[in-house]
Amino acid sequence: MAVQMNPDQLTQFLVEVFPQVHEDFDVMAVDEQTCEIALNVSERHLRPGNTVSGPSMFGLADVAAYLLILAQIGPKALAVTTNCSIDFMRKPAADKRIVAHGELLKLGRALAVVSVKIKSEGDPRVLAAAQLTYSIPPKG
Amino acid sequence: MAVQMNPDQLTQFLVEVFPQVHEDFDVMAVDEQTCEIALNVSERHLRPGNTVSGPSMFGLADVAAYLLILAQIGPKALAVTTNCSIDFMRKPAADKRIVAHGELLKLGRALAVVSVKIKSEGDPRVLAAAQLTYSIPPKG
Amino acid sequence: MAVQMNPDQLTQFLVEVFPQVHEDFDVMAVDEQTCEIALNVSERHLRPGNTVSGPSMFGLADVAAYLLILAQIGPKALAVTTNCSIDFMRKPAADKRIVAHGELLKLGRALAVVSVKIKSEGDPRVLAAAQLTYSIPPKG
Amino acid sequence: MAVQMNPDQLTQFLVEVFPQVHEDFDVMAVDEQTCEIALNVSERHLRPGNTVSGPSMFGLADVAAYLLILAQIGPKALAVTTNCSIDFMRKPAADKRIVAHGELLKLGRALAVVSVKIKSEGDPRVLAAAQLTYSIPPKG
Repeated sequence: MAVQMNPDQLTQFLVEVFPQVHEDFDVMAVDEQTCEIALNVSERHLRPGNTVSGPSMFGLADVAAYLLILAQIGPKALAVTTNCSIDFMRKPAADKRIVAHGELLKLGRALAVVSVKIKSEGDPRVLAAAQLTYSIPPKG
Repeated sequence: MAVQMNPDQLTQFLVEVFPQVHEDFDVMAVDEQTCEIALNVSERHLRPGNTVSGPSMFGLADVAAYLLILAQIGPKALAVTTNCSIDFMRKPAADKRIVAHGELLKLGRALAVVSVKIKSEGDPRVLAAAQLTYSIPPKG
Repeated sequence: MAVQMNPDQLTQFLVEVFPQVHEDFDVMAVDEQTCEIALNVSERHLRPGNTVSGPSMFGLADVAAYLLILAQIGPKALAVTTNCSIDFMRKPAADKRIVAHGELLKLGRALAVVSVKIKSEGDPRVLAAAQLTYSIPPKG
Repeated sequence: MAVQMNPDQLTQFLVEVFPQVHEDFDVMAVDEQTCEIALNVSERHLRPGNTVSGPSMFGLADVAAYLLILAQIGPKALAVTTNCSIDFMRKPAADKRIVAHGELLKLGRALAVVSVKIKSEGDPRVLAAAQLTYSIPPKG
C-alpha cells in the first residue's frame, strides 16, 4: 500500500497549515511504516548550556507523528494528539540538526500510535524517545 | 517549611536564565506543595482552529514543574526533565490565558515528581494533565 | 447527575466479570467525579523487601479507572485501557491496604481520562500516581 | 562489552528473588542492547473475551526491562521502576505466549531507560509498547 502523501506534499501541507513553524522542519523521508523529520535548530530552540529545549524536542516528535499519520490517511483528516509520553535521555548538541525517526505502531479507525526516537544528525545515540497517540475523527 | 524562592524571585530567575521566553510566563503563586503559572497566549502559541498548540501547553507544564521544584531547592540547582507524560483533553480558547496548576508529588534527593493540570483562566475544566519527573543533580 | 452504578453494583459487577481477581478489591466509594478502591494486599502482591509489587499497583490503578468510568456509563460498556503512564515514588508497606483515589478528568464519547493516586491506608503520602485513558466503544 | 548475566543466570536469579512468579517467564535471549522474554500465559493472566490482561502485559514489560538492565550491571543492583508509560493497541490471543522485545535506550549511572514491544509469538504486530525508567542505586 503506497502512502497518500509524499515528502513534497507533506511539506506543502505544512506551509499552508502551519505558516508559523513550517520553516523549522524538513520532511526527509516517509513510507508506510516510518518517517524521518529534521528540526532546523535556531536561536529560539536553544536553552542555557547550548542545548535544544525540551519543548522543541516535544514539538518535533509531535510533528513527526502527525506527518507520518497524514502520509497514510491524506491531508483531509483533522487528527489531534491525545497523549504523549517522552523520555529525555541525553542533551542535544546545539550545532546540529536533530532528526525524529517515527515508526507507526498502530493505525486504527479512531486511534493511531506512533513511536519516535530523536537523534542528532550523524550520531546513533537516542536523545529522546516518545510514544504518541492521535485521535482520528470519523469520516463524514 | 518555607519556600526558598517566592514568585518575584522565580520571575527574576526566568528573566536571567530564559531571556527568550520569560515574557510568556507569569508566576502567579507558589508554596511548599503547589504553584500557579500562567501562559500569556500570543500569536506564535496558536494553531489553526484558533487554539493553543500542544507544544505550548507542554512548555507551560514543563516550566511550572521546574519553578515549583526550584521554589523548594533554590536557584542553584540544574534540574532537568527526564520524563513527561501528558494527556490533551480539550482545546483551549485562544483568547484567554491558560494556567498550569502544579502539585509536588515527590521531592527526593535525586528525583522530583510533579503533577500539572492546565485550565483556561476562569474555567474549571481540565484542558491537559501531565506528570513530569525532574532529575536533581547531586550537591557538591 | 447521579452515578449509574453504586459501590454495591460495581462490586457485584466485579464478581461476575472478573472472578479471578474480584476478592482483591474493595469498592469503598464512588461519585460523579471520584472513587476510592482498596487493594487487599496478600502474599502474591508482595515483592522482596516486603513491599507491594509494581504490577499490583498498576492493576489497582487500572481497576479504579475502569470502575469510575463504569459508574458513569453503566455496566454494558466494554471499555478498554489504551494508555497508562504511572510514576512509582515510594515503597508501600506490606502490612496495610493500599487505596486508589481516582479522579475523572474527561468523559468523552470515545475516550475517558482518569487520574489515580495510590496511598497506603491512613498515610497521606502518594506512593504512585497514574494517568489512564480508556477507549469507550460506540453504542450500537 | 559482554553482558554480566546470560539467560541461565537471569533465570536462576528470578527463581531466587521472585519465587512467586518466576515460572511465568522464560528468558529467551539477552545481549548488550536487547532481550526477549516470554510470558507463559495461564489461567490467571486471562480476562473475559479470552485475552491477556493489561496488568499481565505491564508485568511482562517490567520484568523484561529489569532483566535487560541486570544483564548489563549484574545481580547485585537493587534497581526499581520509577516510571512506565504503556500503550495497549491490540488484544493478545489467549492461546499463545506473548513475548517482550526489550531495547536499552540509556544506561546511565543513576537512571536506565528501556523500550519494550510486546507481540504474540509468531505474529509481527505490536500488541503493546512501553517505555520504562529504572532508578539504579549508587554503588557502595
